[in-house]
Amino acid sequence: MKTSIATVSISGEFPEKLAAIAAAGFDGVEIFENDFLAFDGSPADVGRMVRDHGLEITLFQPFRDFEGMPEPLRSRTFDRAERKFDIMQQLGTDLVLVCSNVSPASLGGIDRATADFHELGDRAAKRGLRVGYEALAWGRHINDHRDAWEIVRRADHPNIGLILDSFHTLSRKIDVGSIRSIPKDKIFIVQMADAPLIEMDLLYWSRHFRNMPGEGDLPVREFTEAIAATGYDGYLSLEIFNDQFRGGSPKTIAADGHRSLVYLGDQVRRNPDASTLTVPEMPDRADVKGIGFVEFSADEKDSENLAAILKTLGFRKTAVHRSKKVAIFEQGKIRLLLNTDEKGFANASFAVHGTSAYAVALIVDDAGAAYARAIALGAEPFEQLVSQGEVQIPAIRGVGGGLIYFLDEKGNLGRFAEIDFTPASEDADIAAAHLAHIDHVAQTVAYDEMLTWLLFYTSIFEADKTPMVDIIDPSGVVRSQVVENKSGSLRLTLNGAENRRTLAGHFIAERFGSAIQHLAFHTEDIFATVAALRKNGFEPLPISPNYYGDIEARFGLDPALTERLKADNILYDRDDQGEYFQIYSTTFGEGFFFEIVQRSGYRGYGAANAIFRIAALKKALRPEGLPRL
Amino acid sequence: MKTSIATVSISGEFPEKLAAIAAAGFDGVEIFENDFLAFDGSPADVGRMVRDHGLEITLFQPFRDFEGMPEPLRSRTFDRAERKFDIMQQLGTDLVLVCSNVSPASLGGIDRATADFHELGDRAAKRGLRVGYEALAWGRHINDHRDAWEIVRRADHPNIGLILDSFHTLSRKIDVGSIRSIPKDKIFIVQMADAPLIEMDLLYWSRHFRNMPGEGDLPVREFTEAIAATGYDGYLSLEIFNDQFRGGSPKTIAADGHRSLVYLGDQVRRNPDASTLTVPEMPDRADVKGIGFVEFSADEKDSENLAAILKTLGFRKTAVHRSKKVAIFEQGKIRLLLNTDEKGFANASFAVHGTSAYAVALIVDDAGAAYARAIALGAEPFEQLVSQGEVQIPAIRGVGGGLIYFLDEKGNLGRFAEIDFTPASEDADIAAAHLAHIDHVAQTVAYDEMLTWLLFYTSIFEADKTPMVDIIDPSGVVRSQVVENKSGSLRLTLNGAENRRTLAGHFIAERFGSAIQHLAFHTEDIFATVAALRKNGFEPLPISPNYYGDIEARFGLDPALTERLKADNILYDRDDQGEYFQIYSTTFGEGFFFEIVQRSGYRGYGAANAIFRIAALKKALRPEGLPRL
Repeated sequence: MKTSIATVSISGEFPEKLAAIAAAGFDGVEIFENDFLAFDGSPADVGRMVRDHGLEITLFQPFRDFEGMPEPLRSRTFDRAERKFDIMQQLGTDLVLVCSNVSPASLGGIDRATADFHELGDRAAKRGLRVGYEALAWGRHINDHRDAWEIVRRADHPNIGLILDSFHTLSRKIDVGSIRSIPKDKIFIVQMADAPLIEMDLLYWSRHFRNMPGEGDLPVREFTEAIAATGYDGYLSLEIFNDQFRGGSPKTIAADGHRSLVYLGDQVRRNPDASTLTVPEMPDRADVKGIGFVEFSADEKDSENLAAILKTLGFRKTAVHRSKKVAIFEQGKIRLLLNTDEKGFANASFAVHGTSAYAVALIVDDAGAAYARAIALGAEPFEQLVSQGEVQIPAIRGVGGGLIYFLDEKGNLGRFAEIDFTPASEDADIAAAHLAHIDHVAQTVAYDEMLTWLLFYTSIFEADKTPMVDIIDPSGVVRSQVVENKSGSLRLTLNGAENRRTLAGHFIAERFGSAIQHLAFHTEDIFATVAALRKNGFEPLPISPNYYGDIEARFGLDPALTERLKADNILYDRDDQGEYFQIYSTTFGEGFFFEIVQRSGYRGYGAANAIFRIAALKKALRPEGLPRL
Repeated sequence: MKTSIATVSISGEFPEKLAAIAAAGFDGVEIFENDFLAFDGSPADVGRMVRDHGLEITLFQPFRDFEGMPEPLRSRTFDRAERKFDIMQQLGTDLVLVCSNVSPASLGGIDRATADFHELGDRAAKRGLRVGYEALAWGRHINDHRDAWEIVRRADHPNIGLILDSFHTLSRKIDVGSIRSIPKDKIFIVQMADAPLIEMDLLYWSRHFRNMPGEGDLPVREFTEAIAATGYDGYLSLEIFNDQFRGGSPKTIAADGHRSLVYLGDQVRRNPDASTLTVPEMPDRADVKGIGFVEFSADEKDSENLAAILKTLGFRKTAVHRSKKVAIFEQGKIRLLLNTDEKGFANASFAVHGTSAYAVALIVDDAGAAYARAIALGAEPFEQLVSQGEVQIPAIRGVGGGLIYFLDEKGNLGRFAEIDFTPASEDADIAAAHLAHIDHVAQTVAYDEMLTWLLFYTSIFEADKTPMVDIIDPSGVVRSQVVENKSGSLRLTLNGAENRRTLAGHFIAERFGSAIQHLAFHTEDIFATVAALRKNGFEPLPISPNYYGDIEARFGLDPALTERLKADNILYDRDDQGEYFQIYSTTFGEGFFFEIVQRSGYRGYGAANAIFRIAALKKALRPEGLPRL
C-alpha cells in the first residue's frame, strides 16, 4: 500500500500544496487539473516539481463527460482526450481518471460505453497511457461501481481499468462485497474519502462534507478490507472536497490525511483478508486505564491562587519535586501537578499561554508501545530535560502544543513520584471532598481543529468518537464531540469554537491557542462532596433559579430534591442508564474552571445543561454582570 | 399583520436580544424557554423587561412531547403543562406552543390526541390561557398541518387552536391551498422561516439552514397568501434556527428579520386574496434602468494613479465640479466620478477605507419613490451636504456603509452634471476603447453579510437572486451570488469571503470592510477594445498559458482564436445562450480591479474562469510572485 492525495484536497497555491504533501510523508500526488491550469508553469515544469519533492504523480484527473456521447460530441470528446494525453505525457504520468458521464446529452447502454472505452484504450496504448473509469454516485447512466466494472470488463483492454472511490460506493450503500471478485490488476487506483452520516443530496454531500478516512462515519475500513481482499496493494489516494480543508492550513490537513491512511492501513492489515497488504506494523491502539496526572504551568502568584482553589476542592499538597518547583496535590486517584519552575517547557508554555493545564499523563499498559504507535502515526515527540537519576517519561505534543505523557504500571507510574518527589503533608485542616478520579478532561479548540484531534486520539488510543452535539452559547454554536473508551477510563471532550464571543472562543483567543478548559472530577456522593466543599469555602458557580423549576417538571423530581439541588447550585440530568449531577466552579484566568460530577450509569456529559452553565460562567467572567432590570 | 420574532432567532444574552428586537421595530417577541431559563431574572422580571421595550409576548415555546402519551407519562405531561402555565401567567402571555410529539413512547390516533387537547384546553381555560398546536415536519405521528388541524377541529375547544409554520409545511411540500379553508380564529399564530433548497434530512435542514423569508428558496409568499386568504391579520413571527445567525450581530439579524416581514407583507397585500391584511402601502420595487455613475473617494496621489489607469481604459475627463474637488470621467454611457475633496463623506470614507468605489448611483423611474421604499424597508437614509443651488440626490447607505444614490430622468439625472459641474475636455489623445456601459458591479462582503445584502437589494429593487456558486480561491471557498433584473440593466455580484487569506477576504480585511471590489465594463467588440487598450498602454492581467489549451479542447475553439485570446490575456466562456469574453486589469490598492466583458446573450459571469483569474490576481498582488521552479 502506498499513500497519495489529490491536490484539490488541501489549501494553498500549487507549490505550497506540493510542499505540504511531501512534508506529510505521502508517496504520490493526484494532479487535479484546475490546480495545474491556474499555475503558470508548463506541464513539464509541474512534473519536475513533483518529482523534485520525491513524489510520484499517481493520477491526472478529472476527465469528464466522456462515454456514451452521440456524434458530433463523441468526436470532440475523443479530441479532448487526446489533449489530456498530451498534457499527461508532458507531466510524466500514465494514468487518467474518467468519471462517469453526467451530461444530459449522453446516451445509456453498456455496449456503447464499452465501445467508447475500447477505442480510448487503443488511443491510450499508442502513447503508453492508461485510463481508469470511476462511477460517480450521481452519474447519469452509470452511478454504481458494479456497472463501471462491467463496462471495464467488457472493454477487455489492458489500458482500461477501474477506479474505485470509497465515497461513491459507500454513499450509495453499495455492498462492498461486490469488490472482492474484481481482479486486482484491473483496479488502477483506489480513492478514499469519508463523510459524516447526514442524509442529503449526494452531490452536495460530496462537494462540501467529505473528510479523511476515520474522521467521518462511513464504513471505510470495510471498504478497504474488500479492496485488500483482491490482493490490491497499490495506492490509496485521498480525494477530499471539504470547504473547511480548502481554507485550512495545508500542512495540518496534509498531515491529517497521511495519518488517516496510515491508521486505515493498520486497521486493515489486521484482517486475514489483507495478507498481501504491505503496511508497516505498529503496536495496538493504547488502552488507557486512567489519568495519571494533570500538570498546570503557572507563575508564583497564579499558583498560589490555584492552590487555594484546589484546597477548597479538598485537595492536599502531598509532595514536592526534588529539583524543580513542582508540587503534587492529591485526592482519591486524582493527582494534579503545579509547576512554577522558571526553566523548562512548563515555563515556556506559561510565557505564551499564561497559567494553564498544559500536560496530561495517561496510564496505559505499555508506555513505550503507546509512544511508538503515536510516533508511527505522525505525532510530534517531546523530550523533556530531566536531571540525572530522575525518571524520563515518554511524551508527545497534543492539543495546542500541550503535552501527553505515557505512564504504565510496570515502568514509570508511581516511580516518577517516588524518585523525583519528596513527600509533603500540608493542609491537614482541609476536608476531603470525596473526589475519586478524573471523569473527563475537556479541551477547547478552534472549530477547524476538531477533526484533527478526533483522528489523533482515536488512531492512537483504543477509543471511539461520539456523534457531534451542538452546544448553544448565547453568542454562537459550539460543537462538542467526545473521545471515550468503553470502560469510561478515558473521556476527552472536544469543544470547537467558531467565534471568539462564545465562552469557548474567548478562552482560546485570550490564551492564544487550544487547550484544556476544564477538568471534571468524579464523586460517589455529590451531597457529601457539597458538605465538604462548603466547609472548605469553595465558591460554586451560581445557577439561574429558573433552571430548577424546569428540571423538576421535566424529570418529575421530588420537590425536596429540587430544593436541595437549587440550594447547592447542582445541575441534574438523566438518561435511560442513570443520573448525573454536576457542580461547577467559577472561572480562573481566561475561563478555566473545574467541574464535579456524580455519574451513576449515565452515559452523557450533561449537554442539555450546557446552555445554563455557559450563561452562568459568562456572567461570572464579567463581575459587573448583565444589564440590570 | 403584526411582526414578531422568537428570541432563539438571534444572538446574544437575553437583554441584548430584547434590545435588538425592539430597535428593529418588531411589535412582539416569542419567548423561547431556554433563553428565559438561562437568564436569572424571574418570569415576572422578564415580562416587565419585554413590556418596557414596548413589545408584546406573542408566544411562550416550546412545550414538547405532549399528546398521545400513555400513563403514567400522560399524567406527568399534564403536570408539566401546569408548570408552564404558571410561568406564562408570571410572564404575562396567554399563548403557548405545543409541537407535535416526537417521543418513541407516544401513541398515535387522532381521537387520543383530540382527547388530550380537549383536556388541556379545559385546564388552560381555567387560567385564561390558550394553547396552539403545531405539526413538526418530523413529528412521530403528526407531521402535516392538515392532521394537526383535524385534531384541533375535533378538540373543538375555544382555548385550543392551530399554529402554522412555513418551514414545516413547505419543507414537506404540502399544498398550501389546504390552509385556505381553516377559520382564521383557529389560527392562533403563524411562524415564518425560509431555507435554501437543498435536499437533506428535515431536522438537520431545519436546525442549521433556516433563514429569513426571502433569503431562501421556499415559496413563503404563496404560503403567506394562503394565510391571508383566511382573513388572518395577526402576528407573523420569525422562528429561525441558523448557526450563522446565532453567532452574528443581534442588531443586524433583527433588522434583517424585520425587513423580511415588511417585504413579505408588501408582496402579499398585492394579492386580491389578502384584502383584509393590514400592511402599510409603499411604492413598487424600483426598476433600475442603469448605473448613473460610480464615485471613487481618493487622495490626490491615488487619484492621479487611478486617473492614469482610467485613461489607459479609454476614459476622458469630461467635467469638474464647481465647488468640490470632483472630476467626471466618461466613456459610452459609463460615468466615473473621482472625489478628492477634503471635506464631506467621500473624504470620511477615504480616511477609514482608503481609495475605494464608495458610491453607486442607480437610474430608476422615480428617485423619490425608490428612496421612500428603501426607507420603508429599513434602509439607512443619507443626506449629503450640498452648496446652495446644487442638486440634492436622494441616497441611502449600502454595503460596507457606502452610498447608493437614486437618479431619475424626470428629475436629477443629467441635471446634477449640468448644474454642479463645468465641462472639461482633456485627454484628446486617448483612444476610445468602445466601453459602452457597466455590465456589473462586484461587491465583496464578509460571508455572514451575504444574506443581509441579498435581501436588501431584492426587497428594494425589481430583481432576483441567482443560486449560490462556489468560487475556488487557492486559500478557501468564496461564495458568489448575483442580484440581477431581467433586462440585465442591474447586475450586482456579491462575493462572500470566509477567511482573509482569500483574495476577497484580503480585500475586506485590508480596507476595513465590505465594498465594491471591481467594476465590469461592457464592450461590443472585445478585439477592437484590446487594440485601443494597447495604444493607451493598458496593462492586462497575465493569464496562465495552460488555461488556453484547456478552453480550446473544452469548447472546440478554432486554434487561431485561441492564439488571439492567449496573446491578449482574454478569458472565454460559453453557455447555451451565447459567448463571454473577459479581460482583467491588475489590482489597484488592496485588491480593487477593473474587468472588461463582451457579453453576447451569455447569462453568467464566467464562474468557471474565476479560479484562473484569482490565481493571476493573487500573483499580481505579490510582485515577487510564486516560488520559482
